[in-house]
Amino acid sequence: MSSIFRNVALVGKPDAPRIAETLSGLYRYLVGRGLCVWVERGCAHFVADFSPETCTVSEVGQRCDLAIVVGGDGTLLSAARVLVKFNIPLIGINLGRLGFLVDISPSDACAKLDEILEGRYSADERFLLRAKIWRGDRVIHEQTAVNEVVVHSWNAASMIEIETSINGVFLNSQRSDGLIVSTPTGSTAYALSAGGPILHPTLKAIVLAPINPHTLTNRPIVVADESVVEIAFRPGKQFKVQVVCDNVSIPGVELEDRIEIRREPEAFRILHPLDYDFFEILRAKLNWSSGYRS
Amino acid sequence: MSSIFRNVALVGKPDAPRIAETLSGLYRYLVGRGLCVWVERGCAHFVADFSPETCTVSEVGQRCDLAIVVGGDGTLLSAARVLVKFNIPLIGINLGRLGFLVDISPSDACAKLDEILEGRYSADERFLLRAKIWRGDRVIHEQTAVNEVVVHSWNAASMIEIETSINGVFLNSQRSDGLIVSTPTGSTAYALSAGGPILHPTLKAIVLAPINPHTLTNRPIVVADESVVEIAFRPGKQFKVQVVCDNVSIPGVELEDRIEIRREPEAFRILHPLDYDFFEILRAKLNWSSGYRS
Amino acid sequence: MSSIFRNVALVGKPDAPRIAETLSGLYRYLVGRGLCVWVERGCAHFVADFSPETCTVSEVGQRCDLAIVVGGDGTLLSAARVLVKFNIPLIGINLGRLGFLVDISPSDACAKLDEILEGRYSADERFLLRAKIWRGDRVIHEQTAVNEVVVHSWNAASMIEIETSINGVFLNSQRSDGLIVSTPTGSTAYALSAGGPILHPTLKAIVLAPINPHTLTNRPIVVADESVVEIAFRPGKQFKVQVVCDNVSIPGVELEDRIEIRREPEAFRILHPLDYDFFEILRAKLNWSSGYRS
Amino acid sequence: MSSIFRNVALVGKPDAPRIAETLSGLYRYLVGRGLCVWVERGCAHFVADFSPETCTVSEVGQRCDLAIVVGGDGTLLSAARVLVKFNIPLIGINLGRLGFLVDISPSDACAKLDEILEGRYSADERFLLRAKIWRGDRVIHEQTAVNEVVVHSWNAASMIEIETSINGVFLNSQRSDGLIVSTPTGSTAYALSAGGPILHPTLKAIVLAPINPHTLTNRPIVVADESVVEIAFRPGKQFKVQVVCDNVSIPGVELEDRIEIRREPEAFRILHPLDYDFFEILRAKLNWSSGYRS
Repeated sequence: MSSIFRNVALVGKPDAPRIAETLSGLYRYLVGRGLCVWVERGCAHFVADFSPETCTVSEVGQRCDLAIVVGGDGTLLSAARVLVKFNIPLIGINLGRLGFLVDISPSDACAKLDEILEGRYSADERFLLRAKIWRGDRVIHEQTAVNEVVVHSWNAASMIEIETSINGVFLNSQRSDGLIVSTPTGSTAYALSAGGPILHPTLKAIVLAPINPHTLTNRPIVVADESVVEIAFRPGKQFKVQVVCDNVSIPGVELEDRIEIRREPEAFRILHPLDYDFFEILRAKLNWSSGYRS
Repeated sequence: MSSIFRNVALVGKPDAPRIAETLSGLYRYLVGRGLCVWVERGCAHFVADFSPETCTVSEVGQRCDLAIVVGGDGTLLSAARVLVKFNIPLIGINLGRLGFLVDISPSDACAKLDEILEGRYSADERFLLRAKIWRGDRVIHEQTAVNEVVVHSWNAASMIEIETSINGVFLNSQRSDGLIVSTPTGSTAYALSAGGPILHPTLKAIVLAPINPHTLTNRPIVVADESVVEIAFRPGKQFKVQVVCDNVSIPGVELEDRIEIRREPEAFRILHPLDYDFFEILRAKLNWSSGYRS
Repeated sequence: MSSIFRNVALVGKPDAPRIAETLSGLYRYLVGRGLCVWVERGCAHFVADFSPETCTVSEVGQRCDLAIVVGGDGTLLSAARVLVKFNIPLIGINLGRLGFLVDISPSDACAKLDEILEGRYSADERFLLRAKIWRGDRVIHEQTAVNEVVVHSWNAASMIEIETSINGVFLNSQRSDGLIVSTPTGSTAYALSAGGPILHPTLKAIVLAPINPHTLTNRPIVVADESVVEIAFRPGKQFKVQVVCDNVSIPGVELEDRIEIRREPEAFRILHPLDYDFFEILRAKLNWSSGYRS
Repeated sequence: MSSIFRNVALVGKPDAPRIAETLSGLYRYLVGRGLCVWVERGCAHFVADFSPETCTVSEVGQRCDLAIVVGGDGTLLSAARVLVKFNIPLIGINLGRLGFLVDISPSDACAKLDEILEGRYSADERFLLRAKIWRGDRVIHEQTAVNEVVVHSWNAASMIEIETSINGVFLNSQRSDGLIVSTPTGSTAYALSAGGPILHPTLKAIVLAPINPHTLTNRPIVVADESVVEIAFRPGKQFKVQVVCDNVSIPGVELEDRIEIRREPEAFRILHPLDYDFFEILRAKLNWSSGYRS
């Protein structure tokens, strides 16, 4: 059995004992195929019996040419944020509950990996956003996001006032609980709960979805992926803000700071079996009926 | 000039110098009508030239038979939460920007007060909610709300899981940023931003509006005003909750606590000029056009 | 086996051969309990083997003290519109797919009927709306609705302009595809698709939900059930309107006509097994998860 | 005064006497600049005093190198559908009420045209959709749309069932009042009323917005502009459908027909003054406040 990949990493959801069985199975399978297998340190104890080679996610990027992620969409998001700069593809295996990014079921995993390792796959390119926090003329913090950058009121007892511009042109000033700036990947996550549209994963676009805006006509806006979004705040003693990138909170953002959000030049690739169908996942996740003809 | 009210209080928005002129004008007007006028302590300095009698909002409740509130809707909400137990009516004077509760403009105020003081008014009864925080079998905190009780995730980086029941019957379990339990009065405030319907102010109903629910079919639900809403949380180390009553935050709520929300037996009354028209305010606040016939 | 009901009618979904088995089973069961059973004419051929007594739905109202409806929610709506004036209660049996009104499954039907016939049930009162079409000072048509009255553009290529008043007070003028005036019963039907809230079935309220309004702040409004809603149209050669009561279309409505919608004084009752739980049906129909505790 | 355009057409809203003054003013202005001016036949009587050269909109395409449209957005839509194949640019002059496409006010028109005619403008490219109605293997009708193609139930008393695929891949089957397939230009028109997002005019994307879908999770989806959308219907005697392109209804569509919608290869250009700002129009049309800093 040939494989177009040689050094393969297993990256699992941390602190999740229920991944042990799937992880062990995959480890055995990959070794059985004669591949060099690395296991990310945080989940290596789940396959301790095999005494695997272990490494950090960054080292996965340096040493491997494929990362197999086992867990939920959040596990893949975390891995992708690190691995994007190493340009190695990812595969997502779920734990029994279908995800948008972890589309392969554990029960199917070996059969689907057979296909992919032999080069029969479809690759799906996803871009990230980078949020920079500017204080005066210095960037005091930056962080990437696969799903979305959320700028929101820290104190839920009061709205904030956000002034947004796109490519240097003033868009609007809104009073709301915050603003979600989302990639197509993130459009089926938090942005959808806030009333945003579904963007097809390959669309070169970003959606800005206001969170509970005071002005009811403040509706989601979709702009080109190369747009630079800038956010400033209205000063006011009652306001406190927080910036969150894919559930990772950036500490210490102040009202005088400005947030710049733009597309990261590098994208990452997710490899799918050839029968992967985004719409099928959408139908399953959103409980759409499968159609009267089927 | 007769008046059906004798002891009248002026309650103003605190720390808002721009109320000074309106407050002075009203003070002069009321004294000129031969009424006993009390000025709430927090804004008495704006009318210091007149050396007015001052008192707290609670004392307003004890001594006066009418409270005239000058400020925004928030100023009236605060006064109403205290005054509701004294059963004295309120009148709302805005500062130039129409409110749902402060419906009288400063420029009209004396003419409209002439009418009302002579008994020509329509009274509008509004009920409050009371939130009790239960820890085991003890109530550790309680607070009233004129607009809404908001139960929400303290840490915006992650949703909470809320289990709601109505009159002891399980309604649903939802993953979301929180839940708004709103009176009709509050239905045009935060609940509207979260997708809730407008409830007519006199409707005997409460609306439960989820905030950015993960499950898109979690839609606002309207139940009878006498319903008892109970909220419990799913334990989880990543969750932290906050309960907010009309922008007043209740400190120290824990995930093992339960929140009980029910209608307060007492209501308060707002007195309006006879030409008061809730729909007219709605059209003005929501930028509805005034109709093709007018 | 005693029964508090004596003359029982079976009313089935017309032209639906798949009701035959359930209908036959129920017929045998009811006769076996010693009751006088009438079968509505339109579905009598499904139980022709038993040579049942047949009658029209109106005659059901005159002769029977209970109507058992077999079909979907629409079947029960139709029966209720006729039977409401005879004050006889209804029971809804579905055809395998749970409905909001037809809450009893065929597999459970006999066991549940045992309970109900012996007097162990909860009764659920539902009101109807009556739409009157006024042309000048004459009513040219009237019709009742259990779910909703829909006033909409007949020609989908253009919006209509609707002027609405409540109890004689102008509410608003809107450009839209139409307006839904819904009972609590109808709030989980078409009004929900148009963005309306869920009203608890026993709430004494009506919801007005605009259909695709041009003005985005035209949001659903909930008013007291005794409100009189009046609708007039802006004349214009491009407009044509239609009024639909529970899917029954009223022919020949013109733009100069006015529509008056108000609560019907009589209500009808649906009898449910004691374990009936509206929220459980809501969770099932809207795919809400059943809660983390269960 | 030089001009980069030589043969200029005036195209006005038909049957709208209030365009007469603006049209006359523009005619005088253009002739005064030494240009050859053609007036579209349908509005030529408004400038009859000048005995202008007249022609049809198609002839405008053949003879002119610029079309100035006077009216509302709908007037420009109609002209653009014809002129797109001649590749001549359009300018939109409104009648006092700002439009998304007719962005120049009559009071400013001559000053703004001065700029544009001298070559100082920004050009804004907009694409159209083409809907083809397939019956078996024949196209029985086709029509273009600048804003949107709407497929909807002809009989508002009942929903239709629509099966949609994108690029030959099944997307979903939905029960609804219909589906809107909209360009970015149309995203601020009917699609916005149906809950769709705002797409930036230059985004290469199409939005599919369901109209009052029975399944609440059927949310708007944004796909690439080169996507081929195909729509089929569930047969059923109660269904009747209509297809509408920018308010122009296509007659005689049957349930066995399939609708194919794809981007038209040609786009048309709207010329704007250099200070044109799409976001400013958005703020004005949607009543967004202009920001706390201004």
